[in-house]
Amino acid sequence: PERMKGQIVTFALTVKKLGQEDPRRIIHAFKVGLAITIVSMFYYFQPLYNGFGVSAMWAVLTVVVIFEFTVGATLGKGLNRMIATCVAGYLGVSAHHLADLSGRTGEPILLGLFGFLVAGTMTFMRFLPKVKARYDYGFMIFILTFSLVAVSGYRDDEVMKIAHQRLSTIIIGGCIAMLICICICPVWSGAELHNLISSNIEKLGNFLEGFGGEYLPSMEGKSKEEKPFRHQYKSVLGSKSTEETMANQAAWEPSHGRFRFRHPWKQYLKIGALTRQCAYRVDVLNKYLNSNVQMPPEIQENIKEACTKLSSEMGKALKEIAMEMKKMRRTSTAKTHMIKSKAAAQELKSLLKVTSLWEKFNLLDILPAATVASVLIDIVSCVESISEGVCE
Amino acid sequence: PERMKGQIVTFALTVKKLGQEDPRRIIHAFKVGLAITIVSMFYYFQPLYNGFGVSAMWAVLTVVVIFEFTVGATLGKGLNRMIATCVAGYLGVSAHHLADLSGRTGEPILLGLFGFLVAGTMTFMRFLPKVKARYDYGFMIFILTFSLVAVSGYRDDEVMKIAHQRLSTIIIGGCIAMLICICICPVWSGAELHNLISSNIEKLGNFLEGFGGEYLPSMEGKSKEEKPFRHQYKSVLGSKSTEETMANQAAWEPSHGRFRFRHPWKQYLKIGALTRQCAYRVDVLNKYLNSNVQMPPEIQENIKEACTKLSSEMGKALKEIAMEMKKMRRTSTAKTHMIKSKAAAQELKSLLKVTSLWEKFNLLDILPAATVASVLIDIVSCVESISEGVCE
Repeated sequence: PERMKGQIVTFALTVKKLGQEDPRRIIHAFKVGLAITIVSMFYYFQPLYNGFGVSAMWAVLTVVVIFEFTVGATLGKGLNRMIATCVAGYLGVSAHHLADLSGRTGEPILLGLFGFLVAGTMTFMRFLPKVKARYDYGFMIFILTFSLVAVSGYRDDEVMKIAHQRLSTIIIGGCIAMLICICICPVWSGAELHNLISSNIEKLGNFLEGFGGEYLPSMEGKSKEEKPFRHQYKSVLGSKSTEETMANQAAWEPSHGRFRFRHPWKQYLKIGALTRQCAYRVDVLNKYLNSNVQMPPEIQENIKEACTKLSSEMGKALKEIAMEMKKMRRTSTAKTHMIKSKAAAQELKSLLKVTSLWEKFNLLDILPAATVASVLIDIVSCVESISEGVCE
Repeated sequence: PERMKGQIVTFALTVKKLGQEDPRRIIHAFKVGLAITIVSMFYYFQPLYNGFGVSAMWAVLTVVVIFEFTVGATLGKGLNRMIATCVAGYLGVSAHHLADLSGRTGEPILLGLFGFLVAGTMTFMRFLPKVKARYDYGFMIFILTFSLVAVSGYRDDEVMKIAHQRLSTIIIGGCIAMLICICICPVWSGAELHNLISSNIEKLGNFLEGFGGEYLPSMEGKSKEEKPFRHQYKSVLGSKSTEETMANQAAWEPSHGRFRFRHPWKQYLKIGALTRQCAYRVDVLNKYLNSNVQMPPEIQENIKEACTKLSSEMGKALKEIAMEMKKMRRTSTAKTHMIKSKAAAQELKSLLKVTSLWEKFNLLDILPAATVASVLIDIVSCVESISEGVCE
């Protein structure tokens, strides 16, 4: 019982944290509950029921299945479902009529064949990258509706009526879900993507700014506290699939806030890719924060200032870019920091050129410092292309 | 019409390529078609129909919805669906009875409240990371079934009978889908994950082997052909989410081939993470293949041999590790290459120590060579931890 109590407490804490991390999750749960309650009432009350019959069940089903966290996902699923149901229903009824012509024995064979062909082709089409990204759900619903309508036709002479009823209940369910999703505290995929990318850039900026202040001094004091900036950037490394999903969802969204319909979401993916490329380099740098490589203090002394300056200028530039992105306003601050970074890089390069500074050491001892310097110089061009990407 | 013809040809080529890339996709489409045809017949033929009524439709629906490309995904969705339907159906019937006690006016209010609470709580629970990874679909079906059963109870006095029919048709549909998925040319997530990880390691090995042969010579000849090894590794960088999905799916799979049930799939994720870490470093190296940095030929001469040796030994070691993984057999070849790589790294380090070799150059000219050397040395430890990870 003690252990179980502990487990329950842990669970409760996890749930609490989940809500605190993003209170919109609680609102989302509330929205889903509301949508289901509203749509259930269609099914429940006598007069509405008489209109739609058992098909009203499809409205409940639709709401549960298409209601997603973001508006983009919900709209995507909803529209996919409605259109696919409509097209497949029509084709299903046609297939049914066609099979009808072939008489009592031919009908089941023909219908089975149709079902097989449609399901097989559509399943194969789902592997097409474009389809998989945006119309996967629609193709699934297409197969489903086609099979249901074509086959159920045999049982029921009222195929058309049933097909029509199902379609209208699905549309009702879909509209209720989409309306509630959009009207009550909507979560836009586009805005989420925008924030994700800019906060990723900001994380890299934090790292670089911290790195300048932390890396070289820490070698003197050897007191390495774990600062938060050191691990933030790691989430950037694996953000590719999240970004792609969001961009696909965002394409379904109407214009909202500062985003138009058909906002150039692909541009965000490009910036995201550049950011990740920068993050790979940062990961290499981070290794030097962790390692206990001893470096003669003179070497440090030589490049400390230039490295610190370069790193923190780039950090500031990135943070400024992130800020500009968030506010969607262009300022000259980022550009100033970019120019300063380039100057710092030049300075570092010319320092490296001064042979007298380095000749007393062997290259192996200089190696860590040289690598850090080289990677930092490398990052300058990454930062520059990010800044160009953001401007576009 | 000319343009349209062109588009059709392009489309046909894409489809053909899709099938050629992975012929199992065609088999999968065939399997889905077969499963749907079989299950439609349940719905279609009179005697079976009399047993199940309109509920037979749920069998078709289940097959379409749960049939996925891999066995793991199908089993995961199938089991989630069956268990969730069973539990939610039972609770739904209970909720219906409970609401019944409160009389004609209280009933709709109570049922609406139940629906709201269950849908809200379950939707919120879906945000829990563990639930999201493996039971997301189950929770959705739970909400769906609960709402349907609880609400439909009002209309129908035969709640129990209908709930029972639905459950059995869902189980029939689920079993048919799972059987066909497992019995006809199954695609195991576990085996896929295993192959993905080993081929990722192999790609890195190819790069490193190629890098040794390509990078330094190319600076002489300046004839840079684009070799395929140069871009293969890029797919490794973003493989995180694919690996995680596969590991989650693989956890559903029974023992198959060389994999037991409860194979340590998490270990694969660890190896995957190490491989990606290595890939980040390789990305930094790749930049030096692309850049046109001029380097005095003497510098090149100095480290060319050691770098080439180190890089190609590591490449061989990685390829050997990948081979061992594929065959699931441990050989000593990889270990030999590991030992040779370490020796090469030592050699490179001692070369760097020889001050006389380097003193005539300024550090800026040496920088690219130094960075390549440093990153290569860095990769040694990555390769070592991959090899340790694979051994476990």
